[in-house]
Amino acid sequence: MTVIPKRGNGDGGEFQSPALERLVKSLSRLPGLGRKSATRLALHLVGREDSAGPAEELVAAVTEARLRVTNCTSCGAITEADPCRICTSERRDVTQICIVASPVDILPFEKAGFFRGRYFVLGGLLSPLDGVRAEDLPFGRLTARLDQDGVTEVIIALDSSVEGETTSLYLQRLFEGRGLTLTRLATGIPVGGSLAYIDEVTLQRAFQYRRSF
Amino acid sequence: MTVIPKRGNGDGGEFQSPALERLVKSLSRLPGLGRKSATRLALHLVGREDSAGPAEELVAAVTEARLRVTNCTSCGAITEADPCRICTSERRDVTQICIVASPVDILPFEKAGFFRGRYFVLGGLLSPLDGVRAEDLPFGRLTARLDQDGVTEVIIALDSSVEGETTSLYLQRLFEGRGLTLTRLATGIPVGGSLAYIDEVTLQRAFQYRRSF
Repeated sequence: MTVIPKRGNGDGGEFQSPALERLVKSLSRLPGLGRKSATRLALHLVGREDSAGPAEELVAAVTEARLRVTNCTSCGAITEADPCRICTSERRDVTQICIVASPVDILPFEKAGFFRGRYFVLGGLLSPLDGVRAEDLPFGRLTARLDQDGVTEVIIALDSSVEGETTSLYLQRLFEGRGLTLTRLATGIPVGGSLAYIDEVTLQRAFQYRRSF
Repeated sequence: MTVIPKRGNGDGGEFQSPALERLVKSLSRLPGLGRKSATRLALHLVGREDSAGPAEELVAAVTEARLRVTNCTSCGAITEADPCRICTSERRDVTQICIVASPVDILPFEKAGFFRGRYFVLGGLLSPLDGVRAEDLPFGRLTARLDQDGVTEVIIALDSSVEGETTSLYLQRLFEGRGLTLTRLATGIPVGGSLAYIDEVTLQRAFQYRRSF
């Protein structure tokens, strides 16, 4: 009869390389990566002698990005030149400003290419539960920007989460009496979205905000 | 009426930072990472000024792992010391050798801790379709190792894929007439596995190799 040891045999169940284990741990701390995918990535990065490529390339890319990437001091977008290309472009309408939560939120707008105004990145949303209060977000810089650029229309493009709604409400109050056109993105059925698979809240909103022909 | 430009407005739909785009591309070339998860990782790595941690840590971990990690020249396991701890351990049985495809396959054995022999990593499986032929795998080094260590039992622990089966068959022929005990891992229902959810091939194998009480 074989006696199975409790667990491990002194050699552990880890790689026989503390450096590789550290790399796996370092990778698995990154968002969206578990131990398994981190192990796969680590092995790929450490690789064979003949494929030194991926690791060196990644190290160079991370180092370079850390050096070059900054946030536009005017709008908060991710940029290498400060102020960013959108804030300095002559072709953008200074009187329209679109307020987003994160720099990533600018990408779909720029990809679609219909919006000709400028942006303002809040860098977060009001969240009393997470301790994000009004003084933690750049509202002062936002109002200064509105005055400076002579902004006449503000489009609020925030998530329809509790935090997004709270922040929208705060912004509405902040802009009261400024004579601004204040709008928000429409809520409704996505284009091409199938009614059968739409969630109830979206459906209810789409019904509530129905438009006449 | 608003005329929607065809696509993009000259500012592209990418980040306004070639360095960040290069980092995203570099990350999305890694196994298992798409554009979205690569973007998320890149933003995390580039981060805010106050959280320089993850990027520096990752760069250090990759660089260190690249420097230290090697393969055991005796068994092919991932190791920092060559030959590896398993090959040099006095407590391991030299007469038993377990053949695996990849260094990662050693981990579950070592985690379970019941196997007291040594390993041999093939580093791949025979695959005529992918151009992996017998001369591409270290069969010469394997037989030399068997002779040198006086191995009496070989356990083949390869995937039950077409390539795994082909390689097992090749090994069987290679070892013919050597008077070795040649075994392979049992195929069957996993412990705790539910019959209702077992795939048909596994079920058929489990039935075919049924054991008497």
